[in-house]
Amino acid sequence: MTDESLDRIDAWWRAANYLSVGQIYLLDDPLLRRPLTRDDIKPRLLGHWGTTPGLNLIYAHLNRAIAERGISTLYVTGPGHGGPGMVANAYLDGTYTELHPSIGRDEDGIRALFRQFSFPGGIPSHASPETPGSIHEGGELGYALSHAYGAAFDNPDLLVAAVVGDGEAETGPLATSWHSNKFIDPLADGVVLPILHLNGYKIANPTVLARIPEHELMDLMRGYGHTPYLISGGFDGEDPADVHRRFAATLDDVLDHISRIKAAARAGTLDGRPAWPMIVLRTPKGWTCPAFIDGLPAENNWRSHQVPLASARDTPEHLAVLEGWLRSYRPEELFDATGAPVDRVTALAPGGDLRMSANPVANGGVLRRDLVLPDFRDFAVDVPAPGATIAEPTRVLGNWLAQVAEDNPHTFRIFGPDETASNRLGAVLDVTDKQWNAEVLPTDEHLARSGRVMEMLSEHQCQGWLEGYLLTGRHGLFNTYEAFVHIVDSMFNQHAKWLSSSKRIPWRRPISSLNYLLSSHVWRQDHNGLSHQDPGFIDHVVNKKPEVVRVYLPFDANTLLSTYDHCLRSVDYVNVVVAGKQPTFTWLDMESAIAHMTRGLGIFDWAGTEVEGTEPDVVLACAGDVPTLEVLAATSILRREIPELRTRVVNVVDLMRLMSAGEHPHGLGDTEYDALFTTDRPVIFAYHGYPWLIHRLTYRRTGHANLHVRGYKEEGTTTTPFDMVMLNDLDRFQLVIDVLDRVPGLAARYAALRQRMTDARVEARAYTREFGEDIPSVAEWTWTHGGGTTAQTAATGGTGGDNE
Amino acid sequence: MTDESLDRIDAWWRAANYLSVGQIYLLDDPLLRRPLTRDDIKPRLLGHWGTTPGLNLIYAHLNRAIAERGISTLYVTGPGHGGPGMVANAYLDGTYTELHPSIGRDEDGIRALFRQFSFPGGIPSHASPETPGSIHEGGELGYALSHAYGAAFDNPDLLVAAVVGDGEAETGPLATSWHSNKFIDPLADGVVLPILHLNGYKIANPTVLARIPEHELMDLMRGYGHTPYLISGGFDGEDPADVHRRFAATLDDVLDHISRIKAAARAGTLDGRPAWPMIVLRTPKGWTCPAFIDGLPAENNWRSHQVPLASARDTPEHLAVLEGWLRSYRPEELFDATGAPVDRVTALAPGGDLRMSANPVANGGVLRRDLVLPDFRDFAVDVPAPGATIAEPTRVLGNWLAQVAEDNPHTFRIFGPDETASNRLGAVLDVTDKQWNAEVLPTDEHLARSGRVMEMLSEHQCQGWLEGYLLTGRHGLFNTYEAFVHIVDSMFNQHAKWLSSSKRIPWRRPISSLNYLLSSHVWRQDHNGLSHQDPGFIDHVVNKKPEVVRVYLPFDANTLLSTYDHCLRSVDYVNVVVAGKQPTFTWLDMESAIAHMTRGLGIFDWAGTEVEGTEPDVVLACAGDVPTLEVLAATSILRREIPELRTRVVNVVDLMRLMSAGEHPHGLGDTEYDALFTTDRPVIFAYHGYPWLIHRLTYRRTGHANLHVRGYKEEGTTTTPFDMVMLNDLDRFQLVIDVLDRVPGLAARYAALRQRMTDARVEARAYTREFGEDIPSVAEWTWTHGGGTTAQTAATGGTGGDNE
Repeated sequence: MTDESLDRIDAWWRAANYLSVGQIYLLDDPLLRRPLTRDDIKPRLLGHWGTTPGLNLIYAHLNRAIAERGISTLYVTGPGHGGPGMVANAYLDGTYTELHPSIGRDEDGIRALFRQFSFPGGIPSHASPETPGSIHEGGELGYALSHAYGAAFDNPDLLVAAVVGDGEAETGPLATSWHSNKFIDPLADGVVLPILHLNGYKIANPTVLARIPEHELMDLMRGYGHTPYLISGGFDGEDPADVHRRFAATLDDVLDHISRIKAAARAGTLDGRPAWPMIVLRTPKGWTCPAFIDGLPAENNWRSHQVPLASARDTPEHLAVLEGWLRSYRPEELFDATGAPVDRVTALAPGGDLRMSANPVANGGVLRRDLVLPDFRDFAVDVPAPGATIAEPTRVLGNWLAQVAEDNPHTFRIFGPDETASNRLGAVLDVTDKQWNAEVLPTDEHLARSGRVMEMLSEHQCQGWLEGYLLTGRHGLFNTYEAFVHIVDSMFNQHAKWLSSSKRIPWRRPISSLNYLLSSHVWRQDHNGLSHQDPGFIDHVVNKKPEVVRVYLPFDANTLLSTYDHCLRSVDYVNVVVAGKQPTFTWLDMESAIAHMTRGLGIFDWAGTEVEGTEPDVVLACAGDVPTLEVLAATSILRREIPELRTRVVNVVDLMRLMSAGEHPHGLGDTEYDALFTTDRPVIFAYHGYPWLIHRLTYRRTGHANLHVRGYKEEGTTTTPFDMVMLNDLDRFQLVIDVLDRVPGLAARYAALRQRMTDARVEARAYTREFGEDIPSVAEWTWTHGGGTTAQTAATGGTGGDNE
Repeated sequence: MTDESLDRIDAWWRAANYLSVGQIYLLDDPLLRRPLTRDDIKPRLLGHWGTTPGLNLIYAHLNRAIAERGISTLYVTGPGHGGPGMVANAYLDGTYTELHPSIGRDEDGIRALFRQFSFPGGIPSHASPETPGSIHEGGELGYALSHAYGAAFDNPDLLVAAVVGDGEAETGPLATSWHSNKFIDPLADGVVLPILHLNGYKIANPTVLARIPEHELMDLMRGYGHTPYLISGGFDGEDPADVHRRFAATLDDVLDHISRIKAAARAGTLDGRPAWPMIVLRTPKGWTCPAFIDGLPAENNWRSHQVPLASARDTPEHLAVLEGWLRSYRPEELFDATGAPVDRVTALAPGGDLRMSANPVANGGVLRRDLVLPDFRDFAVDVPAPGATIAEPTRVLGNWLAQVAEDNPHTFRIFGPDETASNRLGAVLDVTDKQWNAEVLPTDEHLARSGRVMEMLSEHQCQGWLEGYLLTGRHGLFNTYEAFVHIVDSMFNQHAKWLSSSKRIPWRRPISSLNYLLSSHVWRQDHNGLSHQDPGFIDHVVNKKPEVVRVYLPFDANTLLSTYDHCLRSVDYVNVVVAGKQPTFTWLDMESAIAHMTRGLGIFDWAGTEVEGTEPDVVLACAGDVPTLEVLAATSILRREIPELRTRVVNVVDLMRLMSAGEHPHGLGDTEYDALFTTDRPVIFAYHGYPWLIHRLTYRRTGHANLHVRGYKEEGTTTTPFDMVMLNDLDRFQLVIDVLDRVPGLAARYAALRQRMTDARVEARAYTREFGEDIPSVAEWTWTHGGGTTAQTAATGGTGGDNE
């Protein structure tokens, strides 16, 4: 490395550090044109210094290498609180001012840059959506590598420099995400360069990986399948110049190593899975801040984690220390008379889109192109009459998804924790493979170095990979078991918040929605029982901003197709789709399904017995495949037994329609709601999940007091499907009883029917406990639709989920 | 090993395998006294075979070693679906029949054992609470090692054999849980022996760790700080006897190695952290099942994951294969004429409590002793009048917890992801340390090989350790940031389900409640902003069985003390306590706090202005510290501005009181509810979390339509505390406006006041955006209580959370 290069790296680093400290502390006098006074300091000091100098160091060195080699590079900031650093770097390379012209490249601009940081009405303290070049919120920890790999898939010329903090390295998701290197294709995918930054401390403790012997750490990295390169320095007052020299030399070695692997991959001479390089970078936490503050160690200590000089505004001592700290970066060498960064600094950065803060992959909406979507109508199940055919909804969807995968060979992937086949999407494996770059045996099936299906038994990885893939402009879905999607509750939170924030940022372009396909749902855990039963992800999701969340409960193959076509076209949402995989009636032909899906809810006029022009006696509502089946079975009993009863069946596929129009963009107007559900008739609502959610969504509706909801109430075990609905009082017999009890006068008039329903429950229960299967009258129940056609099925047959 | 030993091991293994297969398939003819017929097969085949032979093999070998060495051993079954194996082993060693006399040791008993498995009304398919010897539900994956270490803490003579499946090894929580070995004290804690069982396959894929080169796997285990011992066998038809010999010899080496470490620890000669042994066991998935079924590989393939012979009842071919498979274990050698296991089998097991299925640590309630609890009244904040003193609630709690830790040096621990100090529980570090057995530097503080505080930056680990600790009869709490407790949503689910199930099992004794302390809550993320704001864990928790969940929102130091004393005495609950750490008014003296806490909710008669004997004009309700502050501020404005208005202030500390008595054991009767909230007056409810939860909890109440709830609605960033409440319309000014708008006639009469409140919001917002701090009138707001005493405070001062 030339001395000039070295000088530029150091100048950049000092400038970025200076701008970082300035953001945390300064309201005014941004370039120290005069001695600092109390009023120059922010009244509330909010931010984090500790991780920042390391992030700035890496950024500076990558700048040099990118400029020399022209490698398109994305910078993923794993450590939680690197916000000021990433903003500083984006300012130095010019991106910040391009996106925010009000933050100019002069003293006023720097004053505004400092003031807005962690300031009311300004920008948050993390590498957030507001930060140019970021796809990774620095809030919750553990997803840096998953996001990095997600960005690298199908981006063969991209380098993702993923900085992993040694705090975050202790999290579970991060600990397993190292294994992503068994799922990357050296030819068709980009390269992830993990940089494990050991600054040694978390909030108030040392970190585990900084306190194990170096040989263990190296073993660990080798065990993860990497070739580790160690850079260590800055301790005991070591001259940064020496560290820069070592860093630059090692980075060159690493990038040469990567180039050799990529070249071999292109030449077809790569032998097995490469041991990709990674860097262990050991520098002091809070490097370059005062060594001691108030007599206690600050630099190279957890005390520099946040704001080392908490009393900078309140005590002359701290103020003086702060000024000395800021001046130690020699700002007069870094900024010219107007306040603009000097060439000596800015000459380090590459130009245009090669600037990491300007890399378009970090604003994926810019690159996003709509999917080529085959017409889902071509995959429809033929339905001559409601319920006349039987299909496995997810298997039908799988046929369409296979075509989607085939038509979009570089921009669409399916993620799941080893459940793609179990969830009956297996058709996709006829046209593509499961991507896998570990050992393959002759007995293996559908494993290949490149493929559209990504399976690792870690919901965190699946979610993190998909997020990274979407944030960089591509498309995909995550199929997983309904109960265990709670594993990523918190990741969903962060992604939903990212979307909410991004929508308010003009330069962020819309990205593809994050699509969940939750199958193997609560009602069909025949093998797995109670531990696999939890429909509460919906409840979790609807707590987030209505502008970003959608929940769909398609009840058959055709509504599922129509729903998913809609989801794969949408942007900036999280779409939660819960769908069954077991054989079940297909209730709607495709055109009816599309019409129903377009409305989001509606009356099954072929199922009810109401008379036009009069209100029904009772509304039977349903949402979800199993509740829909039970409601229809109940109505067929009612039609037979009480011919004069006027029933209406309402099915809800888009759950958000239940909310008031003022609460959710999909919310139904009160007039429309009342027209469907009536204002005064009993509504028996059979719902897929926890029943109280329906009350929550509808509590402002006029007829709310007449609503009676059945749903899952945490009763379950390994048992038969009908036993499950009986355990939770969602079965057809109970629904008939509910109608009898709620429609005035019926219970007395139909006491015998009520007793028969009660007896039927007892009988069904006893049969199941004796014979271990559902009573035939239920298992082979026949739907007789209004027109007279019938379909026969073992609708509760088949067996349930397969999960380890 | 003697030939007799070898023969016994093999006989046990065959018997356990036989009983496992029998459970999955057989309704009758349990000992194959006659050829199998279709009717002997269960109509629905539900269960999992693949992992079972490996679990049985390990169990058999541990039996031999335990009997020889007399080591108290707990068996933790990591792989999800080992249920039939664990039941089989418990049956063989006699435990099962002791706990369930109806499952006798004869042919009828075995028939009943087979029939109940995964059968309606029977037992689930996992190692569930119903399984003797288990503390670990085989549902969701990834927590085997965390649970194992939790069990080992403070059990110096216990060996925990923790079988880790290679599927679960891919999960994040498991991947980081290996590092638990840096947190175990070789002297005061027990030993965890991880056994990584590589059977090579998940549901439909190979596993990552089975498909990396052996040198990488060994590096990985050494990198995790272990000494790996490899046992491999059973492939290509290898004679099990050869595998038994190698397994036994290696197990002896491993146990000798452990003994040497323990002896050195006791002698004080241990040099640094030991590299504890672990075992890598590589055997075929589904070992001993038919090699091929229908022409496709079954043994040593993912196809043996579940029920390899799915058509055993439906086709003579599968039935014949099943019979051959069962007979291959030679049941006639294993069970006598009555059906009892013969001595050749049973002689392998140790006796009494040394039997792993009978180990009392696996039924921790048997060992649990109440904590010695210091009188929390001695730690009370003096409150001469409501609001007359200021305190940081969690800091006050910390003082008491320090005494709890001191008084219970072996049965109480505090867990948290590096936030114990940040959450201001630092007083505990005056009496104990953070347990840590990695490198220690001279600048470190409060780190020691033994201590009551467990901190690792993994919420999964904290939760898993605590669960293991509680399930084995001890006490503790998990303190963490409110937003990030969602990381363990799914773990909470599993634990809550475990508690619900355990309550119905007569031989399971109550264990200590799982106590959360959620601080650094949604309203005070001054440093961290939006990504750290989510009060939805409460919503998640209340979906579970009311019999096991409790939610408390203590609003000051004294109510927090009273709440936590209650929680640490309770059993079989999950207690969620959300409490602030920032300086805030203490509203109640200790006796009032206890009385309030005992009722769970009540009227602050010192705050309202109602007149006895008449109904108030409006009820201002609050739950949570920040909402309580804002409601009291609003009432003081109302008292000043509208002296004739009769307000009532109701505070809710036990959220479950809002539910109906029929829905939750803590639910308030309707009469009591109506007496507090009235049936027809407007209720303005300021709530800590998402507002709709209050509607959900109260929707059956008479006055529900008059309820107007303010809460968090996903608006936030790094800003000031008062800006946060304004962003979410929870501030005092808005609450006054709400009162004016809801009490008939007020809005018109007090239009000027309404305008002043609106202006106050604008002014406060503008001030904050200009000066970066809260407007002084709010920040230094003075509470004037009914009697005239006042307290002055910067109640919204201080700065917020510290999180990486």
